[in-house]
Amino acid sequence: MEIMQHWLDKRAALSPDDTAIEHPMNGSITFKQLRDQAQSFSRKVAQLGVMPGDAIAIYSNNSIDMVTAIHGLSYIGAVVVLLNTRLSNQEIVYQLTDSNVSFVLTGDDLYENGVEIAQSRQCEVQSFEQVSRLDEKQLSLKKEIALEDTYTIIYTSGTTGFPKGVQHTFGNHWWSAISSALNLGLDPRDKWLASLPLFHVGGFSILMKSVIYGMPVYLLDHFDADKVHQGIVENGVTIVSVVSVMLDRLIDRLGEQTYPEAFKCMLLGGGPAPKVLLEKAKACLVPVYQTYGMTETSSQIVTLSPSDALRKLGSAGKPLFPAQLKIVNQDSVITNDEIGEIFVKGPMVTPGYYQNDEANSKSFHNGWLATGDLGYLDNEGFLYVVDRRKDLIISGGENIYPAEIENVLLGMSGIVEAGVVGKDDEKWGQVPVAFVVKNENSLHESAVIAYCLEKLAKYKTPKHIYFLDALPRNASNKLVRHKLVDLLYKEEE
Amino acid sequence: MEIMQHWLDKRAALSPDDTAIEHPMNGSITFKQLRDQAQSFSRKVAQLGVMPGDAIAIYSNNSIDMVTAIHGLSYIGAVVVLLNTRLSNQEIVYQLTDSNVSFVLTGDDLYENGVEIAQSRQCEVQSFEQVSRLDEKQLSLKKEIALEDTYTIIYTSGTTGFPKGVQHTFGNHWWSAISSALNLGLDPRDKWLASLPLFHVGGFSILMKSVIYGMPVYLLDHFDADKVHQGIVENGVTIVSVVSVMLDRLIDRLGEQTYPEAFKCMLLGGGPAPKVLLEKAKACLVPVYQTYGMTETSSQIVTLSPSDALRKLGSAGKPLFPAQLKIVNQDSVITNDEIGEIFVKGPMVTPGYYQNDEANSKSFHNGWLATGDLGYLDNEGFLYVVDRRKDLIISGGENIYPAEIENVLLGMSGIVEAGVVGKDDEKWGQVPVAFVVKNENSLHESAVIAYCLEKLAKYKTPKHIYFLDALPRNASNKLVRHKLVDLLYKEEE
Repeated sequence: MEIMQHWLDKRAALSPDDTAIEHPMNGSITFKQLRDQAQSFSRKVAQLGVMPGDAIAIYSNNSIDMVTAIHGLSYIGAVVVLLNTRLSNQEIVYQLTDSNVSFVLTGDDLYENGVEIAQSRQCEVQSFEQVSRLDEKQLSLKKEIALEDTYTIIYTSGTTGFPKGVQHTFGNHWWSAISSALNLGLDPRDKWLASLPLFHVGGFSILMKSVIYGMPVYLLDHFDADKVHQGIVENGVTIVSVVSVMLDRLIDRLGEQTYPEAFKCMLLGGGPAPKVLLEKAKACLVPVYQTYGMTETSSQIVTLSPSDALRKLGSAGKPLFPAQLKIVNQDSVITNDEIGEIFVKGPMVTPGYYQNDEANSKSFHNGWLATGDLGYLDNEGFLYVVDRRKDLIISGGENIYPAEIENVLLGMSGIVEAGVVGKDDEKWGQVPVAFVVKNENSLHESAVIAYCLEKLAKYKTPKHIYFLDALPRNASNKLVRHKLVDLLYKEEE
Repeated sequence: MEIMQHWLDKRAALSPDDTAIEHPMNGSITFKQLRDQAQSFSRKVAQLGVMPGDAIAIYSNNSIDMVTAIHGLSYIGAVVVLLNTRLSNQEIVYQLTDSNVSFVLTGDDLYENGVEIAQSRQCEVQSFEQVSRLDEKQLSLKKEIALEDTYTIIYTSGTTGFPKGVQHTFGNHWWSAISSALNLGLDPRDKWLASLPLFHVGGFSILMKSVIYGMPVYLLDHFDADKVHQGIVENGVTIVSVVSVMLDRLIDRLGEQTYPEAFKCMLLGGGPAPKVLLEKAKACLVPVYQTYGMTETSSQIVTLSPSDALRKLGSAGKPLFPAQLKIVNQDSVITNDEIGEIFVKGPMVTPGYYQNDEANSKSFHNGWLATGDLGYLDNEGFLYVVDRRKDLIISGGENIYPAEIENVLLGMSGIVEAGVVGKDDEKWGQVPVAFVVKNENSLHESAVIAYCLEKLAKYKTPKHIYFLDALPRNASNKLVRHKLVDLLYKEEE
């Protein structure tokens, strides 16, 4: 069992005056200030009766207060349950109950709703502002971190069934940060922009990197193309974590400009990226490193390294140094170019879902995590993620991968977003249908289908095209395909 | 227990065509080539009966063959005992016996002496060239590495008593490499020069960094100021590991020139550095990062980070991120500015000396290693290593630290090397005496003593000055003070 000095204490000892968090509206704080605030927070929240091992929920949008609370709870040894603020109250109460949360700490703007939630769950609630007014309790704070201890629980967005609480140890977060550094390098000039929600692992991992690397985080309350653009062009941001939709908007915002030379990369996660988008980025000289990861892997576990970014456009890259990956089909490991389920293994992979034996026995096999995602490795070992298994459309015995069709649709002039799902069909089992957002009024279903027929096998061509104003996305801006399926059957009612 | 894919397999999968080893005479090999050679070596050496868990000695000076053998043995799961080629046969036989070595693999030029050694120990011996002519055995090589497994045993130069076998797990080497990267950064243009012997941990650690970072090693057979200079100035070397004597020669070789801008640093280890030397480096714009470490800590564990290098000249810096350090005096932890014994803790610290309960119980206390070295922390937490405890001179109840006197001597014009030891004295217990190497013939004892009296308290001033042509140094070029003590008593015979 590896033991280290508490990370924030260590960082504050190594580089006390370096910037920890830079917030375009609220100014900057140093690592020493962050440590002092976090320790003060922990002593105040201890006044409420929070004890080591307690599960404490944080219900907040991105803010320095939220960062302080996340670190503060680690000084007590409490487990941090990070709540997605876009969920319905009912969904949140489910998570609080599932993880035995005794206390909910809220952003000030979410306090009122927090009270409602806490009432249903019969637990206590305090806003960050309320905590700040408490006295500090005399308390000996944790001086060391054991890597095997659980730090966070984050629920997977789980497009089917009930969400599962993914436990992350300190070690998971540590190895994730180290794995990324071994791939992207470590430069004293790095500044990482966080506009992804900190309650998702993709945003949270940036906080861990900040403390472990000694790197400033440029923190935004939420994604805003203008603010991100400004961060890069005026404020020295070198790395931005994005999902496809964000990248698309940023490239539009960039227009004819180019980013400063010091800008290192867009780290693109959150599902397979449309090739069209990657080519658009390439044309605008925007360096994009595609990644593959999930809550269970504490963010990226596969990343396309700088030297291969252009040569292997569309690939998610190779598994990071401490990680292993294999493709499995019917219990056999398969190799080049064959599609199968992606299995991963490594010290950044969760030890398991919280109190969920059924999910654990289904997902873990001899130390390997079965991701449920489909992909293949090319002959050089690069991973191509084909699709999420649960989205697989099977039509007349043929497998259809929605992303492939979406890629084609996005290549059509006049279409700006696309989502494909399977619709039940008496003859074929399922047929693909598409939901699209258009920016040309004159675009009609028949033209879209004709375009697809040119590009795709007939069985892959969507049987219907539905036009929407926007596609349903979750807090990470990932397309939520099951909501499209819901729409499908509502339309028929 | 953390498990990873075998590092060299992983590195060869990630960046097969990148340079692993660059040798100014023998050309370069890529990671893919190194993997293939190492795997072939392991299959050939298995033909000799080498089995997982066997202790196999490597008796070689720096060469690509040696690197191949080091990696090759890891594919079998053998433990590598690294022999210092400058030891007497008697000393080597002691180590072979102590670590139960069954087989000695030698560099081709050392084979003859290897045969002699092996005869005394009654174990087998083969040169790398002999191994290369063997057939490959069908064998399933290790695909994974468990970080808790032992990889190497390196004997401490041990200036008193019998040498102790320091065991290093794969994890020790891993964490050492990661700790260094968190301090020095990771740049795809890095190229690290190894002229320190690979049989010492300071040289060995460069090989581990190479595989883990994907970084080329510029390998020299031994230290040669011209070749190191050429490596930096003409061949893109960015980091060089040195000890004081080497640094001094390199600065002399540099003359009026400056190193290219891409040159990152001299990583200076192997004992406290004279301030005069650090100031000389500063004047020549040579970036020096002073470090503190030992075999037991798998190389550096404390390093002066770039931003503090000039402000804290003479300090060894702060303990690396995953490491902890405390100063202990009479069983109490002491803080600012008080001198005491340096204790360290962290995942790069050896799990213990090989089969040596007495040394282990003496050195390890609740997970902390008592280093036997003396130092203090300043009010900002920077470590200043005062001296090795065993070299402490106690005179009339006053503590005298040889390094302090040596620093003064080295500041005197005409003196190029200096070593101070205690000489038994009826009245005072001990008195300090100095051995110096001069480059001005006219320099006499009286002038040196007069110079010291100006700079030092009377009790610290050497009672005698002995002039030598060279000081006794070990394979790492560290001053071996006990040999000076031997000289002292020989002189009196």
